[in-house]
Amino acid sequence: MGKQFLEITEKKEVEELIAELSVKHAKKIAVDTEKVRLGDGEALGRIASTDIFSTLDIPPFDRATMDGYAVIASDTFYAAEDNPSLLIVNGYVQAGEFPSPSQYVEKGYCTGISTGAPLPKGANAVVKVENTSDYEEEEEEEENRNIKMVKIYKPVAPAEYIMFAGSDIKRGEKIVVKGTRLTPRETGVLAACGIREVEVRKKPSVAVISTGNELVAPGTQATTTLEPGKIYDVNAQTVCDSVREVCSGSGCVPLFLGVAKDNLEDLSAKLNESLAKGADVIIFSGGTSAGAGDLLPTAIERFGEILVHGVDIKPGKPFILGMVQGKPVFGLPGNPTSALVTFNLFVAPLLRHISGDYFYKGREEKQNLERRKKVKATAAVRIFSEKGRNEYVLVKVKVNLAKTKPAEKGNLLVYPILTGSGAITTLSSADGYIFVEKGKEIVEEGEEVEVEIFF
Amino acid sequence: MGKQFLEITEKKEVEELIAELSVKHAKKIAVDTEKVRLGDGEALGRIASTDIFSTLDIPPFDRATMDGYAVIASDTFYAAEDNPSLLIVNGYVQAGEFPSPSQYVEKGYCTGISTGAPLPKGANAVVKVENTSDYEEEEEEEENRNIKMVKIYKPVAPAEYIMFAGSDIKRGEKIVVKGTRLTPRETGVLAACGIREVEVRKKPSVAVISTGNELVAPGTQATTTLEPGKIYDVNAQTVCDSVREVCSGSGCVPLFLGVAKDNLEDLSAKLNESLAKGADVIIFSGGTSAGAGDLLPTAIERFGEILVHGVDIKPGKPFILGMVQGKPVFGLPGNPTSALVTFNLFVAPLLRHISGDYFYKGREEKQNLERRKKVKATAAVRIFSEKGRNEYVLVKVKVNLAKTKPAEKGNLLVYPILTGSGAITTLSSADGYIFVEKGKEIVEEGEEVEVEIFF
Repeated sequence: MGKQFLEITEKKEVEELIAELSVKHAKKIAVDTEKVRLGDGEALGRIASTDIFSTLDIPPFDRATMDGYAVIASDTFYAAEDNPSLLIVNGYVQAGEFPSPSQYVEKGYCTGISTGAPLPKGANAVVKVENTSDYEEEEEEEENRNIKMVKIYKPVAPAEYIMFAGSDIKRGEKIVVKGTRLTPRETGVLAACGIREVEVRKKPSVAVISTGNELVAPGTQATTTLEPGKIYDVNAQTVCDSVREVCSGSGCVPLFLGVAKDNLEDLSAKLNESLAKGADVIIFSGGTSAGAGDLLPTAIERFGEILVHGVDIKPGKPFILGMVQGKPVFGLPGNPTSALVTFNLFVAPLLRHISGDYFYKGREEKQNLERRKKVKATAAVRIFSEKGRNEYVLVKVKVNLAKTKPAEKGNLLVYPILTGSGAITTLSSADGYIFVEKGKEIVEEGEEVEVEIFF
Repeated sequence: MGKQFLEITEKKEVEELIAELSVKHAKKIAVDTEKVRLGDGEALGRIASTDIFSTLDIPPFDRATMDGYAVIASDTFYAAEDNPSLLIVNGYVQAGEFPSPSQYVEKGYCTGISTGAPLPKGANAVVKVENTSDYEEEEEEEENRNIKMVKIYKPVAPAEYIMFAGSDIKRGEKIVVKGTRLTPRETGVLAACGIREVEVRKKPSVAVISTGNELVAPGTQATTTLEPGKIYDVNAQTVCDSVREVCSGSGCVPLFLGVAKDNLEDLSAKLNESLAKGADVIIFSGGTSAGAGDLLPTAIERFGEILVHGVDIKPGKPFILGMVQGKPVFGLPGNPTSALVTFNLFVAPLLRHISGDYFYKGREEKQNLERRKKVKATAAVRIFSEKGRNEYVLVKVKVNLAKTKPAEKGNLLVYPILTGSGAITTLSSADGYIFVEKGKEIVEEGEEVEVEIFF
């Protein structure tokens, strides 16, 4: 890296140098973190800088997953359409309520329950309301007038239609792995655990400086009073907006430091200001006056070193790359188009890398998958779909690293997520979904499928 | 549209209905606009709601495009390496300065000039500094001691190395067409014209309401005091973040209105609150208690109509779509995964449409082109590249609508932008660039090229 390129460098060589720099630089700035709130969307797209653990069980209590009656399963074992079990209803529990002590379910009793409500003590299953009917008035005996009863027409097994406390997420369980990019699926899981704030990697700060004695920052002078010989600065806007655009969500924050005059003192002062303000990357553009092309390299060499001065491309030949106190310093040509082309070619890849791509969990496997794209993959196992339903099966996508079947090495494999749509963790473990059309019940192992990618 | 679907609707039918609704709804909310500042990046990605015109010439004055000497071209016509023209230097003008009255260039005189500096009156061309040399001291006559002179070794034609006032953008010229999505290229052009604020389409406001007696908004109760029977709301976070993510830049703004209880009064109140707060779209999720599935449709029918109640997909069967006072109202299932799947299938396409895609200039031609993607296209004309340079030629991309050559109908055609990298308008008229490698000087008409798309 200490090598100095004082002559025109080949494009390919510059690209390799920037790739190398990206890796080095990304590691260095990985330590900077900040806390952001989930509620206002600040966490969306950011990279978690620590592992995050749940401080509670999800669900926090045994929970009914159907409307019906909480029962002791053995009370229903002999129930049948023509021979219903008859149980005394000792009360009701709605979602959001908690069973009262009197709602303890004893043999011969049951509690009416709604989806999402906590299971009363004693009960070990839920009978769906469709498989029950109210015990009719006319069948009642005199002494049972004030006792509500229900008929059960189908047996249930223990644990049926119950989601047990902690079965989705256990207290203390890791819910987000350090380095994960927080999509709505992760923020949902965090919300489920009552977490309001997360520690994430800071967005890299990018100092942006325009140079040129003729430049006026837009808005600092009214159009009518633009001094003779002056023009409005274009690159401040183009470069700052390009910085913002590079990597939305986890992206970079531009820090516009104004216009520098074409002299060594001003350029050096801006370089110092960038470092003092904690910029992770510094971008100069312009300097079109006579001899200005040599001023920025001289300023950079005062504090650091020049790596590239000139590339064999058009537009963009006078491109400069240096390093000052471990921070990359870019010098883009002043022409707006040249500035944009060199930004896209050389600056954007570095910014993308240090703003998150590098830290993204699973990036190696998934870097080629794009959000909301459809990709071809192979079913890694047999996948079942409900009869007569158009089903979206949530899946995890993995690159086949083995040489074995069912797919060729390097192909994508999909595995179904089996936790179901009620589980919070289904959200964060899925990479996307496959569509299984009505009429198809089984996707065979090795069958080709199309995955719609979530992230 | 007045048709009521009280039974399970087919997925395809729902998708068609939402596409129809998107178009209708997008037209209606197209009138809402707001002013945003360019400087802080607020304009980036937004859709211009008016045509925007330049209030000044760009460049504002005749401007040198090379370092050298401003001359009267005819004074150089007989200049040659072995017979230089000798001109008196009447001063210098740097970029950012304006020539003094004494810098009027008369026959036999010239003015030293730097790139970007205004051309002094009288001059009509610039000689590059490389084609000149200082007149040596030893050749000087006694009487010329205080007169600086320069030798010109090559003739220049009138207008050479000059960019004339208004040649890039004329005062009063349309610089942004209504409906354009503002990328860094457009914001750069606006900056060039000294524009600080633009009128853009408002981001659609999306009311988000969770329903369920058991739900607690994350952060409103500490984990340790989460009441028995309650759980933290997941969908508020997932839906709000998904709304934010749908269309970054010009996207939608979620407006979380809290948790509604599972009763008609609360649901109706939230519906009213959404409308009162100007929501363009309303999204409910959940309502998992007994019979809750019928409450939202009832509330919607109090104020408007139900279009869909149930879709033949899994998960997501209980999906609801209604219209209230011209605003789409979505009812997503309460299970987080079902909510996310139905959001992606039915809500996201509508939000994408009304948040900008619909208004995007050239969307029909370019809707399949994605930012930073490489696409294959055909050179519509012969494209020249500089000898011995790796050149990035900025191009405009059009869909070939004719049946004639050089490409098949429907293929993409590229046209080079000929204004050069110094022109501001090169930026906003280019859709991307093609790379012409060193050694290749001509891309023939009809030749296949790869375009890297900017937007």
